[in-house]
Amino acid sequence: MADLTSKLAEFAAGPLTTTLQTRIVTSLSALDWIAVGRAGADEPVSHIIRDMVLSEGGAAQAHLFGGEEAPLRAAALVNGTISHALDYDDTHFAHIGHPSVAIFPAALALAEFEDRPIVDLLEAALVGMELSIRIGLWLGRGHYQAGFHQTATAGAFGAAVAAGRILGFDVGQMRAVLGLVATRASGQKAQFGTMGKPYNAGLAASNGVEAAVLIHKGFQPNADAIEGEFGFGATHLGADDPTAALKGLGEDWLFESVSHKFHACCHGLHAALEAARDLDIAEPEVAEIKMKTHPRWMSVCNQLVPTTGLGAKFSYRTVIAMQALGYDTALPDSYSDKICQNSKLKSLRDRITVEADDSLSETQAHLSLLRRDGARREAQHDLLTPMSLSDREDRVREKASKLIGGDEADAIWSMLRTGGRAADLADRLSG
Amino acid sequence: MADLTSKLAEFAAGPLTTTLQTRIVTSLSALDWIAVGRAGADEPVSHIIRDMVLSEGGAAQAHLFGGEEAPLRAAALVNGTISHALDYDDTHFAHIGHPSVAIFPAALALAEFEDRPIVDLLEAALVGMELSIRIGLWLGRGHYQAGFHQTATAGAFGAAVAAGRILGFDVGQMRAVLGLVATRASGQKAQFGTMGKPYNAGLAASNGVEAAVLIHKGFQPNADAIEGEFGFGATHLGADDPTAALKGLGEDWLFESVSHKFHACCHGLHAALEAARDLDIAEPEVAEIKMKTHPRWMSVCNQLVPTTGLGAKFSYRTVIAMQALGYDTALPDSYSDKICQNSKLKSLRDRITVEADDSLSETQAHLSLLRRDGARREAQHDLLTPMSLSDREDRVREKASKLIGGDEADAIWSMLRTGGRAADLADRLSG
Repeated sequence: MADLTSKLAEFAAGPLTTTLQTRIVTSLSALDWIAVGRAGADEPVSHIIRDMVLSEGGAAQAHLFGGEEAPLRAAALVNGTISHALDYDDTHFAHIGHPSVAIFPAALALAEFEDRPIVDLLEAALVGMELSIRIGLWLGRGHYQAGFHQTATAGAFGAAVAAGRILGFDVGQMRAVLGLVATRASGQKAQFGTMGKPYNAGLAASNGVEAAVLIHKGFQPNADAIEGEFGFGATHLGADDPTAALKGLGEDWLFESVSHKFHACCHGLHAALEAARDLDIAEPEVAEIKMKTHPRWMSVCNQLVPTTGLGAKFSYRTVIAMQALGYDTALPDSYSDKICQNSKLKSLRDRITVEADDSLSETQAHLSLLRRDGARREAQHDLLTPMSLSDREDRVREKASKLIGGDEADAIWSMLRTGGRAADLADRLSG
Repeated sequence: MADLTSKLAEFAAGPLTTTLQTRIVTSLSALDWIAVGRAGADEPVSHIIRDMVLSEGGAAQAHLFGGEEAPLRAAALVNGTISHALDYDDTHFAHIGHPSVAIFPAALALAEFEDRPIVDLLEAALVGMELSIRIGLWLGRGHYQAGFHQTATAGAFGAAVAAGRILGFDVGQMRAVLGLVATRASGQKAQFGTMGKPYNAGLAASNGVEAAVLIHKGFQPNADAIEGEFGFGATHLGADDPTAALKGLGEDWLFESVSHKFHACCHGLHAALEAARDLDIAEPEVAEIKMKTHPRWMSVCNQLVPTTGLGAKFSYRTVIAMQALGYDTALPDSYSDKICQNSKLKSLRDRITVEADDSLSETQAHLSLLRRDGARREAQHDLLTPMSLSDREDRVREKASKLIGGDEADAIWSMLRTGGRAADLADRLSG
């Protein structure tokens, strides 16, 4: 019984019903993806993956972050890896994955090569991201907790379908591409904290492109390789009841609740930084700050006295002090070894305490500020609180402006909202 | 505790102790791999995978079966897929996998590109095949029965190490390449019976090459991603006691018991064909033949009256009749739709009966021939019975001669045994 595969394939090949909100959120994810990819193009893993691909040569089929072009599969591998290198891209909490870094590299490579309009690219990416979230939901927490990286595994299915949509696949081809990518999808959580994590996003994108190109050329796989006794779900410790994953498919866009990162540090710090933002803390007025967070984060991102930029990205006290001192936590370069030695920062940091509070959820944080004038102000933030569409647009565009400059961010946003060719958008993957 | 990884890495990077037998069996596997790859180059899946890779262009780094050249990763993908297209390559029963099709494409691509001698190629391939068998043993029957294709999964680790050996990896790099390929290795048994099966062999080879090239360029993965709670073994339902997999490592070559196929049909038929060969059956003298096989094969390869060439490859009665009539069961082309309609074959086939016998193992078959003169002759064959080295050489070279012609087979054998450059050998991947 391949009910899940059939329904997903029908969705992926069929007409779409979207709202303005769906389309704007998709465009914001595209802008965010390009901005974090450009910002990550100089990371060590980015140079390694580009070097490998460029040493192979090949047809100039699709642009790469950092400049130059490569064949489709190679471009997807490179752009997926680079755009996840800073771990600054969007997240979907329902399936515990990063949708854009797995899907956009696949959709854009094909759309550029096939010379399709941007509107088609966005539609294909939306379908792919939605499908990756729903496959991710089906694979479930068990799959993730066992050790699979949902971004890579569920992402490959979404990337395959996004690429297939650009290629005009019918329902049968969508079933086939889902079946084929099931034998190729992979990615371990064991790689977290290493270059292997962003590489996993590249795998998802390139596995999807490869599967779609092969199906386009007539490859005949087992189209029923996701469900059933020997299907991907069973072998990869995923759940097998598709009810939740299929609920509202084609009507409700789970993708719309994607969460963008507005700080270039560990996600566990973001609720606290948003609460600090609400309080609009300025260092001179701070007597002390007490912070509460969900207990699971205490071992992840509560480094008390980090000495490196990387350590700072996992330190509540450091990032709150940075923000109060006017350092921009949205910029990756703000997290430096040097800032860890800044005397003002060290002094303020000593006035900040962090406590676990199991009444808070993993996406919540609570801040209590005691001012020098004796006044106490409090704020609590939950990352799951929906943002208004206009706030979201403001924040994502502001982040993109910081990462790649206002003119570039505005130009890309204009292309995404007013149309044009995917190839012109691809040309913006480097500055 | 990464004891398995460490010991495998030390083995893979260290000096080797081999015997003449080890080296000859390795060379025979190389010859067999080239012969079945060349014979498979016109299969539909072979054209599809070549078309994809050739449409990407790229540097002429390594030769392809069927002619032309491609970059390293692409060549490994193509040659792995094509050489498994006929399912006529070697098998290792201890780990239920096909060693040569996963490893040689990786080792040869690197050895050609690095312009290394054939002796280095053979040594790297031997190390890779041995390691894939030992990882396969560790992953075990549970892994295979759950639905993973050992050729693809265990094969990727072997391919990575073979490629790494050509690149001169030290122990640390070998640990790293094993850790990196753990996030990339994949392949479902659900693809059996489709183009996805040979593709899985291509995945193993190209995943290994990609991992080795990246490590060579300085990629830093989690080098402990095979063992432990979130390692490949745990996530992929493999066993975690490495004792059996490590037993005799570096002293005993499990690879030496690799089994070559001498008939271009389902492996379940081979013991019966070998028994028939021992009886030297000729059709005119046959009154009746009674055959016994292990019960599991009855549902796999006992098609009674097949009407297609593919069906003939899964029919005891048909292949025994073919052999008695002088058709060469070693040639893929012998299994045709037309032969299924041959009146002599149909008449003889009606005099053959097949029975299940659970006193036989899966690798055994028993034949009882009643001659027209009333004499009865019997023969039993077990595929696990070791062949003498000279018999094995004769049979493999005979098979290769049938597939690619005697002159080509002899020339390749001479190169494998007397040396030369890997690039010259690679030049023989097409006729």
